[in-house]
Amino acid sequence: MGNAYSTSTNKTRVGIVNVTGYAGVELARLLSHHPNVEITSISGRSAAGKKLGDVFPHLAHLDLTITAELGAVDFAFSALPHKESSLVVSALLKDGIKVVDISADFRLKEASLYQEWYNFNHPAPELLSEAVYGLPEIYRDNIAKAHLVANPGCYSTSTILGLAPLLKSGVIGSHVIIDSKSGVSGAGRTLNMGTHYCEVNEDINAYALEGHRHLPEIEQELAYLMRGVRPVVTFVPHLVPMTRGILTTIYAPLSGHTENSKTGDANIKALFKDFYKDEPFVRVVDAPPHSKHTWGSNMCLVYPTVDIRTKRIIVISTIDNLVKGAAGQAIQNMNIMLGMSETAGLDNAAIYP
Amino acid sequence: MGNAYSTSTNKTRVGIVNVTGYAGVELARLLSHHPNVEITSISGRSAAGKKLGDVFPHLAHLDLTITAELGAVDFAFSALPHKESSLVVSALLKDGIKVVDISADFRLKEASLYQEWYNFNHPAPELLSEAVYGLPEIYRDNIAKAHLVANPGCYSTSTILGLAPLLKSGVIGSHVIIDSKSGVSGAGRTLNMGTHYCEVNEDINAYALEGHRHLPEIEQELAYLMRGVRPVVTFVPHLVPMTRGILTTIYAPLSGHTENSKTGDANIKALFKDFYKDEPFVRVVDAPPHSKHTWGSNMCLVYPTVDIRTKRIIVISTIDNLVKGAAGQAIQNMNIMLGMSETAGLDNAAIYP
Amino acid sequence: MGNAYSTSTNKTRVGIVNVTGYAGVELARLLSHHPNVEITSISGRSAAGKKLGDVFPHLAHLDLTITAELGAVDFAFSALPHKESSLVVSALLKDGIKVVDISADFRLKEASLYQEWYNFNHPAPELLSEAVYGLPEIYRDNIAKAHLVANPGCYSTSTILGLAPLLKSGVIGSHVIIDSKSGVSGAGRTLNMGTHYCEVNEDINAYALEGHRHLPEIEQELAYLMRGVRPVVTFVPHLVPMTRGILTTIYAPLSGHTENSKTGDANIKALFKDFYKDEPFVRVVDAPPHSKHTWGSNMCLVYPTVDIRTKRIIVISTIDNLVKGAAGQAIQNMNIMLGMSETAGLDNAAIYP
Amino acid sequence: MGNAYSTSTNKTRVGIVNVTGYAGVELARLLSHHPNVEITSISGRSAAGKKLGDVFPHLAHLDLTITAELGAVDFAFSALPHKESSLVVSALLKDGIKVVDISADFRLKEASLYQEWYNFNHPAPELLSEAVYGLPEIYRDNIAKAHLVANPGCYSTSTILGLAPLLKSGVIGSHVIIDSKSGVSGAGRTLNMGTHYCEVNEDINAYALEGHRHLPEIEQELAYLMRGVRPVVTFVPHLVPMTRGILTTIYAPLSGHTENSKTGDANIKALFKDFYKDEPFVRVVDAPPHSKHTWGSNMCLVYPTVDIRTKRIIVISTIDNLVKGAAGQAIQNMNIMLGMSETAGLDNAAIYP
Repeated sequence: MGNAYSTSTNKTRVGIVNVTGYAGVELARLLSHHPNVEITSISGRSAAGKKLGDVFPHLAHLDLTITAELGAVDFAFSALPHKESSLVVSALLKDGIKVVDISADFRLKEASLYQEWYNFNHPAPELLSEAVYGLPEIYRDNIAKAHLVANPGCYSTSTILGLAPLLKSGVIGSHVIIDSKSGVSGAGRTLNMGTHYCEVNEDINAYALEGHRHLPEIEQELAYLMRGVRPVVTFVPHLVPMTRGILTTIYAPLSGHTENSKTGDANIKALFKDFYKDEPFVRVVDAPPHSKHTWGSNMCLVYPTVDIRTKRIIVISTIDNLVKGAAGQAIQNMNIMLGMSETAGLDNAAIYP
Repeated sequence: MGNAYSTSTNKTRVGIVNVTGYAGVELARLLSHHPNVEITSISGRSAAGKKLGDVFPHLAHLDLTITAELGAVDFAFSALPHKESSLVVSALLKDGIKVVDISADFRLKEASLYQEWYNFNHPAPELLSEAVYGLPEIYRDNIAKAHLVANPGCYSTSTILGLAPLLKSGVIGSHVIIDSKSGVSGAGRTLNMGTHYCEVNEDINAYALEGHRHLPEIEQELAYLMRGVRPVVTFVPHLVPMTRGILTTIYAPLSGHTENSKTGDANIKALFKDFYKDEPFVRVVDAPPHSKHTWGSNMCLVYPTVDIRTKRIIVISTIDNLVKGAAGQAIQNMNIMLGMSETAGLDNAAIYP
Repeated sequence: MGNAYSTSTNKTRVGIVNVTGYAGVELARLLSHHPNVEITSISGRSAAGKKLGDVFPHLAHLDLTITAELGAVDFAFSALPHKESSLVVSALLKDGIKVVDISADFRLKEASLYQEWYNFNHPAPELLSEAVYGLPEIYRDNIAKAHLVANPGCYSTSTILGLAPLLKSGVIGSHVIIDSKSGVSGAGRTLNMGTHYCEVNEDINAYALEGHRHLPEIEQELAYLMRGVRPVVTFVPHLVPMTRGILTTIYAPLSGHTENSKTGDANIKALFKDFYKDEPFVRVVDAPPHSKHTWGSNMCLVYPTVDIRTKRIIVISTIDNLVKGAAGQAIQNMNIMLGMSETAGLDNAAIYP
Repeated sequence: MGNAYSTSTNKTRVGIVNVTGYAGVELARLLSHHPNVEITSISGRSAAGKKLGDVFPHLAHLDLTITAELGAVDFAFSALPHKESSLVVSALLKDGIKVVDISADFRLKEASLYQEWYNFNHPAPELLSEAVYGLPEIYRDNIAKAHLVANPGCYSTSTILGLAPLLKSGVIGSHVIIDSKSGVSGAGRTLNMGTHYCEVNEDINAYALEGHRHLPEIEQELAYLMRGVRPVVTFVPHLVPMTRGILTTIYAPLSGHTENSKTGDANIKALFKDFYKDEPFVRVVDAPPHSKHTWGSNMCLVYPTVDIRTKRIIVISTIDNLVKGAAGQAIQNMNIMLGMSETAGLDNAAIYP
């Protein structure tokens, strides 16, 4: 166990805790195509004892049985809900197993925020400083050294990637409005009236206007990008009748003290292209992107433009919420943590139409 | 012809120019249920000679034939595309027929804006000052006296109704961001790649970031509500995979000089409820509305709230783009112009689910 | 109570038992537009005490509160699930209140079939012979005299209306294949994995191949149309990613002993048109119908054709499953039972697109 | 050119004629993941001169430019419409290039059928006998030796794979009813009212009841499986509101002379499992499959069952119409023709949800 690689296959043995949610099953799909790892254990309480293919027929070719607890692995992903995840992750770390946690349990640095936003006392606050926020485009070096990576939220990923070049360069100040639109899979596989087909189809609505749980995470990371300045963020998520995809539209006034020569539309586009020029999973595009252009892939498409009339910058940022917004980014983090090629298992194109 | 009411049925004879688009056929459906009018003529060039029921089987019970030119009517709706509409409307007015024009041709007061935004020289600029902008909640008295009413755009309707109480009361200043999401029927029935099922399904995208044609209309009306102050508006429309519905999310900073006592969440909600208390087709709701709650009805649902963290106001405003955003509002205008009950033919509930 | 009509409004007081399901809420919507009745009581256990508009915002204009038990009414609809419904219906009948039951509890004449297909001993088998199967196109006269009408299933309605002219005329024999496709609302509002948006969207599947509960009902009614001959029916329902609509495709070999002169395509179409010539809610159409052509209306569209190559008849039959397949047909039955105009409250056109 | 393999990469150079349709672009996506081939030329008249990524942003990572005519390749796919394809294919074959033709132009053995069903005189009837029908599960050996493979239609693929074990074993006779349901991408990328989002969404309809063009292809292949007996086939295709997927429901009476011992449900299931036991892309499943279980993959799922009441067999067969129904099967054929692993480039799991 631990870091000892499996000898029989020479592949790293990975496990997925709670494989029966949408992030978990997407991890199973993507990892099954990964050249350097092998899924050796998958857990899930409600479906324990069942074959993976009986619960998810699209994965019937994988000969895997769901167990109540995770078996021997070299590396683990936790796709448990928040609060539950922290306990399992702590135990895995103690066994010397590196972990990417897809829940929110290690994203926030301030333990008190868990009480405020998630209504629980964090059981392992000492791990919060050790955990690295798993956005490779910002924290790649830290991820490479980490034992515990907190995989970012889907809304947060699209937002931060849309804002990072602007905030780091100071082209905008701290005032930001984030209008985000998500497909239904972001709400998870648990049943509730808000994901019933007939309630969602032919509908769009805004929700969590009193404050969505991704807000503190976004605030924390924008503050980091601004070297400590507190951002003034309004974030409104919307639910859109589609299964996958997030499209985030960001509005921010140009910073008053920026020289005009730097704020033309061409300058802004050049700023983004330069910022992301070596990134395998962020592409700055020349026309407003469609969420569908990322469907099933780990790509984030970013389109910045200047609204000349109002001196505001508009950025459109889009991802597949289950891939770059969850399972794909988790694997990207694993690749970095294990010194593998960052794109291993993630190089498939989006599926269109 | 002219204003002479039909004697045989004692109902006003109405006509629809270009019945074969989505606004036109929705007019036909709604008018067929109207207690005081009778559709006596429908025109449409490409389908001239056909029975309405052959083109639109859901209206097969109406015994109407599409003609190339409009026949004798007392009142007319034009659902032609912009530019074409102005010519037909001018001719109808000369014959003494009152008109509601669903195109954009008489919405803007400045003739030069048609060159700038629609690429044509307006052929009847003298009618622009006479035309009344057909938003009953703002211009009811003028509509009652008008011969020509310019029916507002769908995006504009949801936006202006969401902002009117705020701008009239001065609770917000001139800075406004409008993030609007529309179903596909807003793009019309004309074929293009952007409305192909496979391109739209499982997709969301922003478009017209360089400036949508509803922007000058929105700017004109917001300026009116602010008594001439020029608004600083960013407007970004999005296309959502659903047939009907617009949901508009509006962001505006609270006006600095407003007393704190007036800007609490309860105050803002009370302001809206008071402003719309007598309106039959605007309801201020206590929870974020779903576009689906208006499906097939002439209702606009508005939800204002204060983002206390940032001192911004957020307003959600939603309508069925083909009803309150087009055909339903056109009938509401006709009702007012002809002195009928404003809700005649429009009192059906939304269909859910 | 009982048959004493309310004096204050001169409208019949009607009640809806279990208003919170899709059939129940659709009853509320349609009845609110009915000229001769008034909803005076609505019940629903889980939501008792709430305003109807808080559960269903599209009906917020109706000032109705959901109660645990039904109050004083002249006529009642039961939209309870099977088994539960029979108990409530029995009690209502004892109070002298006429009832349309939307559940399956009084559709089958053989009490033993409830044990076989629904797993319960019918608590009121004596009512089975009294109950009239509520398909007005077949049983109009009996419905007019009935105290209890069993509203047909949605699949059954589309199937029987598609087959009645053929079976009554003997143009086909007893061998029939029924391939039916339904929108998701047919599965009800209760939460289960099969109605989760992400599981249904971009999917089609067949289900209940071992025998769907509408099969005995279909068999019973086809036997009646064939004057007792036992039909040999295969019925396969499918779930389609749309909210409303059923489209049923029926296949049957031409009866061997029919003279050729009666089985041409034109003859078959004429047979159907004659059979349904006086029906307000069945239209025989000249081109394959779309389910969308009935959306929100009480109309059934039927298209028969002969497959000359194989000497089989194909019939396409389509309805809105929540209207002609549930709430609309229930109101049609009520209209007949109370001697009102059969189309009262049901004369709206389908909504398109 | 010709069969000389590219030396620089040691990969076979492949070309796609008409890359801009849905089959063409899906070929480009799948081939870009293929380990043994390289796309070296893509053609498409309307988009000639454009970068592939400008037309299809999800493929922007491929550095390919669309040309008017195909350049030097070792192997070609034609995704042209019927009639146009035969001319291009003939020319390619003369140059010694092996071809998989995705159009219908070489599927039928009788030249006269092209006049009857497609309204054109086949320009290369001499190739019809040479062409191999590209269903590997039936014709694998012939495909391995072929220069020209006619890729089956999407409806035909799902139908024939659902029927082959039954027809070859004689368990059923010649009478078959095929009720097939397809997503919208099967209608292609060309614009027409039938693929407009608002016309398709929330709708299902049957079409081509007078005879769909896949019918002669199905009849030809079923006759082959029955060793020349003429099948009596009714085939009705339906359009379902989803982008991808075909689900075909097949009904056939058990052959009268089959011994009862062979027609139990377990026998039929065993028959199918044995028939397909070595097939990489057909899986006989134990529960009715969902089209979504094949989404994006080359898998065909087949579910046979016996309707004991009526002595009929029901088979459900489902594929992704753009993969096993078009581009994926074309690559499977290429793999066989070039002696590569049959699953090369096609081993990805379906994407769910």
